[in-house]
Amino acid sequence: MAYDGSVRELRGIIPPMFTPLKGLDELDAAGLERLIEHILDGGVHGLFILGTTGEALSLSYRLRREVIERTCRQVAGRVPVLVGVTDTAVVETVELARFAAKVGADALVVAAPPYYPVTQGEMLNYVEYLARELPLPTFLYNMPSHTKFQFEPETVRSAMRLDKIVGIKDSSGDMGYFHNLLTLLDERPDFNVLIGPEALLGESVMMGGHGGVCGGANLFPRLFVAMYDAAAGRNIPNVLELQKKIVLLSRSLYQIGNASSSLLMGLSAALSCLGICNDELALPYSRLSDQKREEIRRNLDMLRDEGLGSPNRIPELAAV
Amino acid sequence: MAYDGSVRELRGIIPPMFTPLKGLDELDAAGLERLIEHILDGGVHGLFILGTTGEALSLSYRLRREVIERTCRQVAGRVPVLVGVTDTAVVETVELARFAAKVGADALVVAAPPYYPVTQGEMLNYVEYLARELPLPTFLYNMPSHTKFQFEPETVRSAMRLDKIVGIKDSSGDMGYFHNLLTLLDERPDFNVLIGPEALLGESVMMGGHGGVCGGANLFPRLFVAMYDAAAGRNIPNVLELQKKIVLLSRSLYQIGNASSSLLMGLSAALSCLGICNDELALPYSRLSDQKREEIRRNLDMLRDEGLGSPNRIPELAAV
Amino acid sequence: MAYDGSVRELRGIIPPMFTPLKGLDELDAAGLERLIEHILDGGVHGLFILGTTGEALSLSYRLRREVIERTCRQVAGRVPVLVGVTDTAVVETVELARFAAKVGADALVVAAPPYYPVTQGEMLNYVEYLARELPLPTFLYNMPSHTKFQFEPETVRSAMRLDKIVGIKDSSGDMGYFHNLLTLLDERPDFNVLIGPEALLGESVMMGGHGGVCGGANLFPRLFVAMYDAAAGRNIPNVLELQKKIVLLSRSLYQIGNASSSLLMGLSAALSCLGICNDELALPYSRLSDQKREEIRRNLDMLRDEGLGSPNRIPELAAV
Amino acid sequence: MAYDGSVRELRGIIPPMFTPLKGLDELDAAGLERLIEHILDGGVHGLFILGTTGEALSLSYRLRREVIERTCRQVAGRVPVLVGVTDTAVVETVELARFAAKVGADALVVAAPPYYPVTQGEMLNYVEYLARELPLPTFLYNMPSHTKFQFEPETVRSAMRLDKIVGIKDSSGDMGYFHNLLTLLDERPDFNVLIGPEALLGESVMMGGHGGVCGGANLFPRLFVAMYDAAAGRNIPNVLELQKKIVLLSRSLYQIGNASSSLLMGLSAALSCLGICNDELALPYSRLSDQKREEIRRNLDMLRDEGLGSPNRIPELAAV
Repeated sequence: MAYDGSVRELRGIIPPMFTPLKGLDELDAAGLERLIEHILDGGVHGLFILGTTGEALSLSYRLRREVIERTCRQVAGRVPVLVGVTDTAVVETVELARFAAKVGADALVVAAPPYYPVTQGEMLNYVEYLARELPLPTFLYNMPSHTKFQFEPETVRSAMRLDKIVGIKDSSGDMGYFHNLLTLLDERPDFNVLIGPEALLGESVMMGGHGGVCGGANLFPRLFVAMYDAAAGRNIPNVLELQKKIVLLSRSLYQIGNASSSLLMGLSAALSCLGICNDELALPYSRLSDQKREEIRRNLDMLRDEGLGSPNRIPELAAV
Repeated sequence: MAYDGSVRELRGIIPPMFTPLKGLDELDAAGLERLIEHILDGGVHGLFILGTTGEALSLSYRLRREVIERTCRQVAGRVPVLVGVTDTAVVETVELARFAAKVGADALVVAAPPYYPVTQGEMLNYVEYLARELPLPTFLYNMPSHTKFQFEPETVRSAMRLDKIVGIKDSSGDMGYFHNLLTLLDERPDFNVLIGPEALLGESVMMGGHGGVCGGANLFPRLFVAMYDAAAGRNIPNVLELQKKIVLLSRSLYQIGNASSSLLMGLSAALSCLGICNDELALPYSRLSDQKREEIRRNLDMLRDEGLGSPNRIPELAAV
Repeated sequence: MAYDGSVRELRGIIPPMFTPLKGLDELDAAGLERLIEHILDGGVHGLFILGTTGEALSLSYRLRREVIERTCRQVAGRVPVLVGVTDTAVVETVELARFAAKVGADALVVAAPPYYPVTQGEMLNYVEYLARELPLPTFLYNMPSHTKFQFEPETVRSAMRLDKIVGIKDSSGDMGYFHNLLTLLDERPDFNVLIGPEALLGESVMMGGHGGVCGGANLFPRLFVAMYDAAAGRNIPNVLELQKKIVLLSRSLYQIGNASSSLLMGLSAALSCLGICNDELALPYSRLSDQKREEIRRNLDMLRDEGLGSPNRIPELAAV
Repeated sequence: MAYDGSVRELRGIIPPMFTPLKGLDELDAAGLERLIEHILDGGVHGLFILGTTGEALSLSYRLRREVIERTCRQVAGRVPVLVGVTDTAVVETVELARFAAKVGADALVVAAPPYYPVTQGEMLNYVEYLARELPLPTFLYNMPSHTKFQFEPETVRSAMRLDKIVGIKDSSGDMGYFHNLLTLLDERPDFNVLIGPEALLGESVMMGGHGGVCGGANLFPRLFVAMYDAAAGRNIPNVLELQKKIVLLSRSLYQIGNASSSLLMGLSAALSCLGICNDELALPYSRLSDQKREEIRRNLDMLRDEGLGSPNRIPELAAV
């Protein structure tokens, strides 16, 4: 099934791809290939590269361009490719975006520039600038834990008037806020509202959200696609069964190591245990110790016994 | 008086230079020249470029290199030039640092990378990497309001064991924390502890700090040099008189416009009113409206009447 | 239908009752009577007095006892009465709890004491003390915005081992956290997990929560009972329709006036417009100005036109 | 030297007295007597009971009244007695204040009520109510870490117009804020501006502050009186020497045990080691374990060797 080229009204699971590295400024190119195929095999609806899970802001511009180019070439139109272009310097954001457009990306994703604190008005001004300069449809990215900025619904409402701005990914974890975003759809029904935190995927889609950008879908893409299908299909028993697996996944893999980097550390260690790609992380982060990596390996075995099977088979739910 | 090339045991006022722009990616080169001369005329002890006040993280790498090169050439060894190389991507930090060393900078300044939340251990690991890779003596930069990271005193203690790390600039505004930093000097007396917020310059130096990196010294360098001299000379009456002027300055110029960018906006507008340089700001910020710029102009007149005179003359205190 | 006396496995809507006042230390006793009857007419499953919406901590102990006594007498066993006994001083908490037990209350609700910051271990110690001293089944109350304390799931797990602790009301608004609480049910299936924020009622119940303590149920109890029924009955179309009304309610009534007190102000003004009770608030809060009260009145009319009808009739959904 | 009855223009050290307990609701009356005499022997300028260090909000009202009555009787006019009457319920605040006035207290201290978040306007309204109802001169108490509220300088400016409001104790630890408070003295020179954190006593007094409410003065009152004298007398060498002792004291005694309660735990353990009073703490806090108490004892010995001598003798500085 070839992707027709539009990211408007994007629905479903758009995994925020991890970026496999061999060293601080060296891509694990073979791992990248395997990871892309592994994710696409899961039936996902798009691929988001160079987001938080992709460690984008920790990578050199050269490496970011390499990731964009290789990914676009390999995905080759099978699903839309969304490229994170968040940066502290807007000139670099625009440059990266132009590169992405040139090599075939489908859309861009931009969070607030993370260094200087900004007001809502300053951010709107910034978004308006981007809407003029960026060459592709653009998603806003609400990520207050990393950027110190939360898009107020009124700011999103103003940004929605710009045709270039096609959706928002909300990683705040605040469902009250998410409901406020959903009410904006009355004014522009083709706007996309996607959720970040994977534990909230099921309920957000049941309540009207359009899909999820879930880190765990690097590992178990089919699990998240199944959750999306169950929630979009209003099959609450399946949602509840899948929710247990998602919570179990998170508790098994993301809580080894320290607070804020634990998702990245657990995810990369697990990908490496499964032979998909290297688990090198970019500074300021580092990969898990061998001892903790062993814990991840044991937990992956346990997850298999719990029916998470090989990453891309979820037998019991196939039966539902 | 030629500067002898060492930034170890740096003392005094090291203004964080504003970066004059003509456009989003265009330097106001003539303004830069005038600004440098204006600041050096004030008798400052160093110059810190590409810090928060220099909007470094909002500028393209190309522009940052241009600022470094032009500044080093023009300062020409009269005072040490410190270069901010904070970035989200450590590879770019190292590259920028190498460039700075090549064109004659004296030291580097690095805050935590601002996007990903880091633990103390991760940050220490990061600093150890920098200490190996950076080509110049390096100051840590504690800037929790912008980076979400505060260097714990124990982390600074560990970093102090690295010869390459020569000091810390603390912009937390937390004097209890600053006192904890000062106690570390027992272990390494040549370590530099500098304060950021200008209202705290006087007391921090009286209590044992080594100087200040005060934004207002772009505008009134001699005022801050006078405060440093008064505090280092333990002349409390002068400290109190100068403190009133510093507080007045802050209330007159930095509180027009919005919260977090108000220092930058007021400072640049005032520099422009004085004919020193352009007041263009880099996105996500914008310069003050004409109306607010008028307010700044009136307040500058008032400051002159209050004896702040022309920026580089402070007559009454010359008499003290 | 008489309530049989147990609050274990409480399900449904337990409105956090507003406390009608005539003056700073004077109850609006007639208003209290009307409010109780209005709420019970809505078919709710319990009544929670002296919570945040009841302004408990702003009331004198004498007045708190009067509210407990009058409410228990009037409810007379029709639904369980839960009494908030949160206080900065544990001695007063225990005393109030004993009074509540004596006059017929069914359960207690306790948040962290709000003045001193506490660790998880200190809070567990505190809960263990309460479990020994309190005379009734007790719900924990997670209210970080007011108490600066969030019960970590591990702390709740430990507290669940105490038979006296029967459930938790979570007002954090963090659904990821709520899902972590739900996983604790594996260990003690009779534990109650209730949600505070009304916009999250529907999804929390669909995902396995047991009900809601929703401020809006003072005004429109039947609306929230309908939402509970729809969510518990897994009727997603009804959930979505009711969600729109709940969000509309919140936007119409709770966003007039200032931030943190706006729910209380809007709720009390609306109750007063409907002739149910007085809208006096206890210091540090004050009731809405007459002008804003008029806005509330107009919005109540609009809500009626939107089919929220008289508070206790929701015609269109009665038909579903 | 008899105190003349006015707290206006209070200067110097006003220790926030610890409340010695025998049990959760039982005063250690003999310990209270000894503690008062120990503190007054140190030459302090006032005594502040029932503040944060006095665990006021954790004590029953009965016990708070007992503390007020016994303290006023024993101090017997030797120094002014300030009574903390902060509470979540304003009716109880006023009642306690009237009791304090009746038994001879000199002034009151009030922080924001700690449960409900308040705006600046709401807090000003609250302060105006107190100014009408309270029977004694009243200090505002800025304690954002415990109350979630910081008095903005503009709010203090408005409150200063009320004759009943005579000063402010600032425990924010933010010296930039403190300087903003000091500028308000231009408008009302008899207003008192006192500092809370003991590490900031010296510089705050040198910069124009009027004294300190320092927890450590329960233990070493003469040390803090000496610091006040040195700073008020502009003797910087003595300030620096005393600062080292104050920082050492804090590092030796307040950093054993957990974060926010560590000052209280260390202070009470030390008072108990010195035989002054019991170290029982009120819930939600608990006294240090025996093992950690031993550490405190060893550190007290070390402090003696460092010249902090017996708590009320500081020999070397007596010589200065």
